[in-house]
This record gives sequence, C-alpha cells and structure tokens, in this order.
Amino acid sequence: MSEYVAPLRDMRFALELAGLDAVSALPGLEDSSADVVDAVLDEAARFAGEVLSPLNRVGDRMGASLGDDGRVTMPEGFAAAYRQYADNGWNGMGCDPEHGGAGMPHVVVAMIQEMVMGANMAFSLCPLLTAGAIEALSLCGSGEQKHLYLEKMVSGQWTGTMNLTESQAGSDLAAVRTRAEPQSDGSWRVFGQKIFITYGEHELAENIVHLVLARTPGSPEGVKGISLFVVPKFIPDADGNPGVRNDLRCVSLEHKLGIHASPTCVMAYGDAGGATGWLCGEENRGIEYMFIMMNAARYAVGLQGIAVAERALQQALGYARERLQGGEAGVKGGGSVAIVRHPDVRRMLMLMKSQVEAMRALAAVTAAAQDRAERHPDADERARAQAFAELMTPLVKGWSTETGNDVASLGVQVHGGMGYIEETGAAQYLRDARITNIYEGTTGIQANDLVSRKIARDGGAAARAVIADMKAQAAALEATGDDSLCAIATALAQSVSALERGVDFVLANWRSDVRAVLAGAVPLLGLFGRVAGGWQMARAALLAHQRLAAGSDEAAFYRAKIVAARFYADHVLSQAAGLAQVVCDGAAGVLDEASGL
Amino acid sequence: MSEYVAPLRDMRFALELAGLDAVSALPGLEDSSADVVDAVLDEAARFAGEVLSPLNRVGDRMGASLGDDGRVTMPEGFAAAYRQYADNGWNGMGCDPEHGGAGMPHVVVAMIQEMVMGANMAFSLCPLLTAGAIEALSLCGSGEQKHLYLEKMVSGQWTGTMNLTESQAGSDLAAVRTRAEPQSDGSWRVFGQKIFITYGEHELAENIVHLVLARTPGSPEGVKGISLFVVPKFIPDADGNPGVRNDLRCVSLEHKLGIHASPTCVMAYGDAGGATGWLCGEENRGIEYMFIMMNAARYAVGLQGIAVAERALQQALGYARERLQGGEAGVKGGGSVAIVRHPDVRRMLMLMKSQVEAMRALAAVTAAAQDRAERHPDADERARAQAFAELMTPLVKGWSTETGNDVASLGVQVHGGMGYIEETGAAQYLRDARITNIYEGTTGIQANDLVSRKIARDGGAAARAVIADMKAQAAALEATGDDSLCAIATALAQSVSALERGVDFVLANWRSDVRAVLAGAVPLLGLFGRVAGGWQMARAALLAHQRLAAGSDEAAFYRAKIVAARFYADHVLSQAAGLAQVVCDGAAGVLDEASGL
Repeated sequence: MSEYVAPLRDMRFALELAGLDAVSALPGLEDSSADVVDAVLDEAARFAGEVLSPLNRVGDRMGASLGDDGRVTMPEGFAAAYRQYADNGWNGMGCDPEHGGAGMPHVVVAMIQEMVMGANMAFSLCPLLTAGAIEALSLCGSGEQKHLYLEKMVSGQWTGTMNLTESQAGSDLAAVRTRAEPQSDGSWRVFGQKIFITYGEHELAENIVHLVLARTPGSPEGVKGISLFVVPKFIPDADGNPGVRNDLRCVSLEHKLGIHASPTCVMAYGDAGGATGWLCGEENRGIEYMFIMMNAARYAVGLQGIAVAERALQQALGYARERLQGGEAGVKGGGSVAIVRHPDVRRMLMLMKSQVEAMRALAAVTAAAQDRAERHPDADERARAQAFAELMTPLVKGWSTETGNDVASLGVQVHGGMGYIEETGAAQYLRDARITNIYEGTTGIQANDLVSRKIARDGGAAARAVIADMKAQAAALEATGDDSLCAIATALAQSVSALERGVDFVLANWRSDVRAVLAGAVPLLGLFGRVAGGWQMARAALLAHQRLAAGSDEAAFYRAKIVAARFYADHVLSQAAGLAQVVCDGAAGVLDEASGL
Repeated sequence: MSEYVAPLRDMRFALELAGLDAVSALPGLEDSSADVVDAVLDEAARFAGEVLSPLNRVGDRMGASLGDDGRVTMPEGFAAAYRQYADNGWNGMGCDPEHGGAGMPHVVVAMIQEMVMGANMAFSLCPLLTAGAIEALSLCGSGEQKHLYLEKMVSGQWTGTMNLTESQAGSDLAAVRTRAEPQSDGSWRVFGQKIFITYGEHELAENIVHLVLARTPGSPEGVKGISLFVVPKFIPDADGNPGVRNDLRCVSLEHKLGIHASPTCVMAYGDAGGATGWLCGEENRGIEYMFIMMNAARYAVGLQGIAVAERALQQALGYARERLQGGEAGVKGGGSVAIVRHPDVRRMLMLMKSQVEAMRALAAVTAAAQDRAERHPDADERARAQAFAELMTPLVKGWSTETGNDVASLGVQVHGGMGYIEETGAAQYLRDARITNIYEGTTGIQANDLVSRKIARDGGAAARAVIADMKAQAAALEATGDDSLCAIATALAQSVSALERGVDFVLANWRSDVRAVLAGAVPLLGLFGRVAGGWQMARAALLAHQRLAAGSDEAAFYRAKIVAARFYADHVLSQAAGLAQVVCDGAAGVLDEASGL
C-alpha cells in the first residue's frame, strides 16, 4: 500500500483555474494571499501524508468498536492524530475568525479537505460533521448557544454530529418521530432513537455536540413540524466546561462495507428520563435549517469522491510503474515491461487521471463561486455566483461520487489479482468510496434536486447560462487552430448540444410529466457532470496551451494536461449523446407497469 | 438478506431461445429430453435455494481459515453441503457418462451452474475448479491417469485444482519457475510455489488432485517450455485409494475482498524433497492444454457474473417492494409508497433486470453453440458453431462480469444507507462480484483475446457473420409493425452499425497499429457484449410478441419481456455509438507519451 502524497501541483492549477487571485481580493479574504495559501497547502500536504495517511489502513483493519460500557474505542493512533489536527488549527481553517477560525476561502478549504479525505476518509468524517454542526449553530443558534459552543467546536476541542434519520424514515424526514418536551427552565427533554450517526460517540474530544431533529408537542405533521435541538453529551457547566453527562448513549455501531474507523452509531436519547436539549432557532424550522446547510455538506461529500479517486489513482499508478509483466505490444522479444506500458492499463489510468482532474477543477470552480456568492461587492454577481454554485452542487456531489466509485474500481482492476487482496490497499478505496454516493442524499436524491430545484425552478436560467459559457469555451479552443485543442473543442461542443437536449427535455416535461423527467434524472446528472468536467478540462487545456506558447518551464505538466483533456474528450465526453438519448427517450421502459417490477 | 430463488421461468425461456429442442436432438444428447431437463432444473433450484443459499452469508462471515497444522477449516455447513452436492450427482452433470457423469448438454449445465453460483459463489468455485481439472485430464491424461482419477473426480469424491501462476508471473505464464525433475520410475519431483490456488487445501473431499504447470530440465524458455503435471494430495495406492501424503502444503490463505469461504491458497510443492507428480500429456505442451480448457473456464466465470447479478437483483427487488418511503412523485398527499414506485428506483431495477436477462440469453445461446460444435453431424455446422462460441466466450466472460459488478453496485444503491451495512447482504454481492472480472483473465485479457484471436485472426469472418444475423434480427422485428418492437429494432440496428465501425477499425489497424487497437479493446468488448445482449433481447421480444399474439396464458411474463427489451434498447444499446467512438478515436490520449503516466 502506498502512502498518500497530496497532488499539490494539480491543486494549485485547479486554484488558478478557479481564479484564486480574484477570490483572495474579495472583501474579508485579503489575508489569504498567494504566499499564505501556498504555505498552508504545503503544511496540509505534510500533515495528510505523514500523520493521517499511515492510519488509513490501521483504521480499516481495526475499525471503531463499542464496549459494554457504551464507550467507543477508536483505532490506534486516531486520538493522537485528532489532537494534532485540532492543535494545528486545521479544524477551523474555513471558520469565522470571530470564533477562532482562520477564515480561509472555500476554494482553499476545499483543497485542504480533499487532502484530509484522501489521506484518511474515515478520519475526515469527524471534522466534516463538526463543520456541519458549526454551520448550523452559526446559522440559527442563539447568542448564548454560539458563545457556549462555537469557539470550542471551531478549535476542535469539541466535535459535532447531525442526527437526522431514524430507522423507519430513511431519506424521508417527514417520518421522523423523535420528540422534545418543553421544560420550565427553557430547556427541552428529548426522546427517541437516531440511526446512521457518524461519530455519534468517541473519546477523541472532550465533548460531543449533537444536533437533533425532533418534533415538539402539537407541531404539524410532515417536514413542517420538525425542530432542531442542541443536545450535548456533557452539559456545559457555569464556566462552559463539560459538566453533567446527558441522557444519551450509543447503543450499537453498524458493521459497514467500508470507512470502518468511522463509528456509525445508533443513538438513544432519553432512555433514563429525557436528554436535555435546547431549541436551536425557531420551532418547526428544523428541516429548513438542514436544507440551507445541506449544500455545503453535499459539496464536501463530493470532495470525498474526488479524494478517494485520487488516492486510488496514486496507488494504481505506483503499482503499474513497478510491476513488470509481459512484453510490449507490437515488439518482439523485448522482455518484460512495466504494465503501465500496456495500452489497456494506460487507458484505465488515463480514465482515472483525467476524471480526477476534471472533478477537482469543477469542485474548485464551484467553491470559488461560493466565495463570490458570499462576499462579492456586487449584488448581481453574488446572485449569479449563488445560482451557479447551487446548480453545480448536485453535480459535484452526485457525479464526483459516482465517478469516484468507478475510479476506485479501476484502481483494483489495474492491480489484477493483487487488487482483490486486502493487504494491497486498493480494495479499501473501493469499499470506502461506496458510501459517498449514498450518504448526504443518494445520487437519485441529488438528481431530483438537480431537475427540480436547480433546473426547473428558475425555468432553466442558471443551466442555460452555464451552457452558454461552455459554448463560448469551445469556440475559444477552436480559435487557437491547434489540432488537439480543436479536437477537444469539437467533442465539447457536441456534448454541450447533448446536454442542451437533456435540459430542454426537463423544462418541457417537468409540469406535464414529472415521472418521465425523474426517470431520466440520474442519467441527466451523469451527463451534466461529465460535460461540466469536460468544460473545465477544456479551460485547463487552453490555459496549458497559452503557458506552453509563453515558454513555461513546466512544459511537461502543461503537455500532460492537454493530453488528459484530449483523453477526456475522446473517452468521457463521447458518451454524452448516448446519455441524452436515455434522458429523452428512456422513460417508457422505466414506467411501464407491465415490467412486472 | 433474502434467500436465493432460482429464476426458473427465465432460465426455461433462455433455453428455449437457445434452441434446447434442437440441442436435445443432437447425437449423444437424446437422454436430455424436455421432461428430464425440467425435472433436473427443478431439483437444482431446490438444492440451490434450500441447501447452498443459506450458507452464503455464513461463508462470508466465517471465511475459510488456515490452522498451524496446515489444515484449512471451512465455514460451518460447507462440508455437509458438499457431501450432498456430490451424493446427488450434481458434480458430474455435464461429464462423460463413461466416467459416471450425466452427460447433460452444456446449455443445461450452464443453468445449473448459474443456480449454484447464484446461491453461493464461494461454494461453487470448488466444483468449478474440479470441472477444469476433469477437462484437462480427459483431454491429455494417459489411460492410467484417467482410470485413476476421473471417476472419483466426476463423482465429486475427489476435487481438483489448477496451479498456474506464481508471484512473479501474474497473467504472464512465460515467467513460471516451478520445476519438475524426472525420476527413474517415470514419476517426477515437483518444486515450487504457486499462488492464487482456489480450493488448494480443504477437507471437503478425501483427496485433491492438483494440476501444476512446471518446467522440465532443458526445456525452452517462455511459454513453450512449460509442462502439465498431476500432483495429488494423497498418492493413490494400488487400489486407487488415497495413500501416502504428498510433499505439498498450503502455506497461507489470502485475505480477500470477497468470496471469503473460498480458500485461495499459496501452495508449496517439494519443500521436503519433492512433490511426486506425473506428466500429463506431452512435455512442453502445458500452456497449449491450458488454452484449450480456458474457453470453458472463462465461460463459467462469465456465468458467475450473471449469477451474482441475478442474486443482487432478487435482493434489491425484494427490498424495493417492501420498503415504504416518500410519496408517489406527482401525487399530492397519497402517503408513503414502496420505493419500487419511485422512477429512479425503477430505472435501477430495470437496468439490473434487463441486463441479467440479456446476459443469461447470450450465455445460453453460446452454450448451445458449444453443444452443436461438439456434436452436430454436419462438419460445416460444427465449424460455424465453434467459431461462434469462441467469439462469444470473451464477451460472456468480460461483458457479463463487468456488468455483474455494475448490477451488484446498483443493488447496493437501491438499498440506500442499508446497502452499506453488511448485515443487509447486498454489499457481499458487490465484494464477491469484484473478482469475476479479474480471475481466469482480466477484462483486458479477454479483450485482447477478442481482438486478436477472435476478430483479427479470421479476418473478421466470425464477427461479420454475427453482425449479419443481428441485422436480420432487427429487420424481423421491424417487419412486425409493432411500435415497441420497431423501437427496439431501430435501436438494435443503430447499435449494430456502431459495432460494425468498431470491428472495421480493428481489422483495418491490427497489422499496422496494434497498440491503437489494443487501446480500444476493452471498450470494443463492452460494445460487442452490449450489442450481442441487445440482439438476444430482440429475439426474446419477438418470441414474446408471437406468443402473445397466439394468446399465451403467460401474458404477464411475455409482456414483461418486451418491456425489458425496450428498456434495454433505450438505456443500454443507446450507449453503443459512444463506445464505437472511443474504439475508433480514443487511442491518441491513451498512447501519447506526454501524458506523464
């Protein structure tokens, strides 16, 4: 198993493509100058590679375990690594300086997150959930709640969780039954059982702040009767330190396909009289708060898809360069060569590499739009950036995680029989990746979000704006007259037309035949993601072309970027027309009741 | 976790599509009348569902383990099940009656194998390897070897293994180093270590007959200097019973992603002076013998892809019909519905179902061709059938196992978060499936076989004959004038054109630019497999249409078949043109040295 080496060069390229310069110039981000960002990335790469990566396999093998006393034991080394993570300030990188955060731009934080996730996905979930809880509290917590919790959570001294689903509910939160009863002192008693609670119990930190969805007495049925509560493991005392142990506990851990080191808990609240909690924000607005946060959480899971794909690529490329087997095709008697010389192995590696680069670029561009949406001085530009980031989020989540699975599986395949042996390490990435297109909303749910809220709701305005940008990009490549760039431009233009057919189908049928649109929603997401990735690869190729023309001393890097873009165009964009056909013509076989499903 | 229920109705349909009537009329197969086949299938279904299926999860959880004494302990229940398997005569179903087999046609044996594999893939590998060893001995064993081993192996009293690769060799058998030294009594001493030996050690049977590739003194280098040896665990005594323990042992078991109950052994031969073996066939022809057997073994692994996909489908469909979540799309206030009602869940299930049916039909048609190739009275027809079966074998192997992985992953996805929990069972199918596109030759190796030996070698004759049949099939559907069938016909015709472009590219470039052809070999295999499956689905739809027109009392079955064919055409065949583009235009990005791979 190889250790993780952060892909710093490609990350810096993605940051450039995303316009880091302009982002750093936004109000409030002036501290994130190029020098500072460079230093932070270098240090994050070191921490990910040297501290987190060596624990990845250990974590997988040992897993988290639950004792009879309800305490969760983490794999060896996780506690020390978490301490270092918090002490070095990584947890608060993107958080508000008011609460002790470093206030770095989203686009930079995304690269740091990718490193942490790529080095150790199971570890990364703990800070990821804490970040979600920080966001929820920042958004809707009272002044006192912010004062009590935020600083400790930003520093990583305390961690956070999100308690949404229950066994009967799944993705359908309308079915939540956990209830909260008001107490005379303004607190609430919470009763119920929550499932799939990531890092619901552990002792990496001195306290865990659970955010819990529950119903209050007399609240409406369905999603409009659900409120959000803060329910800490230890109730803060008068000095804000962990005090009385609350009435909540982990009753079991799930035995999962992957991310073994991440404790996925069933949490019981109120078995001994009621867990003490406090209402966060207003009553009955819990789901609304969740939805506001959800874009960030979904985006972050998309990064996991990219991160695990990058790690699988590193492992496979390392193996393919070292493993000697068979002669070079078309060469007689040349002896064994490294398998990276075999055309099909190259095809697999390029499929991995080009898609990783495309996903990373799209994620960076999306994060930069989040930065502009929050901070750009011009309101129109903020609105445009917001619409773009919202449109891209289901793609970053759905497409990057589906592709992450494919890439991890290709990583196994490059290893041949050795890939099936757990010691090799490639199989773990496949197992870990398999959750990313499920949690924080399955790909089906992302696709539903894409067609309903992101395409149909604004009448296709945001989608058409992106499509126009894509067409302009194809024209810009075409204008260079360069053979490779023209080939990329042609493939991009054709795939954009396919995307346009798919979007038109959604807009034409959303009101009249919603089931037909939903039948093709996941194929449309795959189509949109792949074309959006191709758009970014086209931008990358053009930038590389310009740098080469200017006599860059990084010619190898830029030439490789153009080859990757060319490969992506020929192998990935070429599938766009077929996907558009599925979107537009595929509903009959899906919906026909005679199928016998 | 659901238990396996053999898909008898669809298997009978596949047998009909493959022309079981005509197969049963072939010389030597007269005993396999429709009644007999029916009874055998019913009994196999019962055995698979009641005996083997309940051990599938147990086997996964417990796995096979190696003790300090070199003995392999199998999971609970495996020994009893194996005894029943052998006692009931399942092991010899397809074997020559001369050695105690039932002499059933390949096409019927394929259905029985699919059942055993679907019920318990890890179990099925033991008889699968024995079948390979039986075939090798039948092919090249001496009279005495056949007398000593075949009857006991056909009955299942003894099992067999294939010892090909070594740690430095992988798929490149030219690198084999195990050596054999001749003894004065005509036997040989074998020395060396073999890896990835399936069921290399266990105590399910009283003896294990290892077939081992090794080099003899002075033999040529490379694959032309390798011979095949029979090396039994216990050397048969004068009465043919297991006698002296041979100098061979299992030194370790691999810790694998899946098929945990199948012991994958590292075998050491000759550590204590030399393992006693006997040359099988002629010296230096070992690889040749392996290649003759390989089509059968590869075909069988293809069946595993189908079997695990069927099992994943059953599990997912059962879950989707029971799990209530969310309201029906487009319906206000109707309450929760089973998730099978949600369009995207239906899409996933239909993608699973239609591909399983297509794969099964193609496998059946291929097996029927094997029967004709062996037994048809007309030499031309035998040759035609042989060429067809050989062309289809890498498709059945490569396409069915790649698709089996996709289907198993969709099965996880249908379950949402529950799919990631091992207790659900869906994840095991994904883990088990992941070996099928690796062993007996990775998909890359199948694709290499397809373009070199199956397409280029005969100048495309066999491929063009199939393409002509496919076109005729599209025309036959078109001629019905039925809307659904015409839609299928159009999709088939377009996909066949795409296949033709791919085949033409191979033929045009094989001599001049072999690396460009190899760069697109796996995409071509995927294209050919998917179009061949569509061809069979078109045949299925036409037959169903005719039955419905004739007033069949199985209208629901036949209507569902037409819907599945329609779905397959719209969702699966629609990707053919994109794949052809990869085959024809994709080499540049693969082979460009500037990619930095």
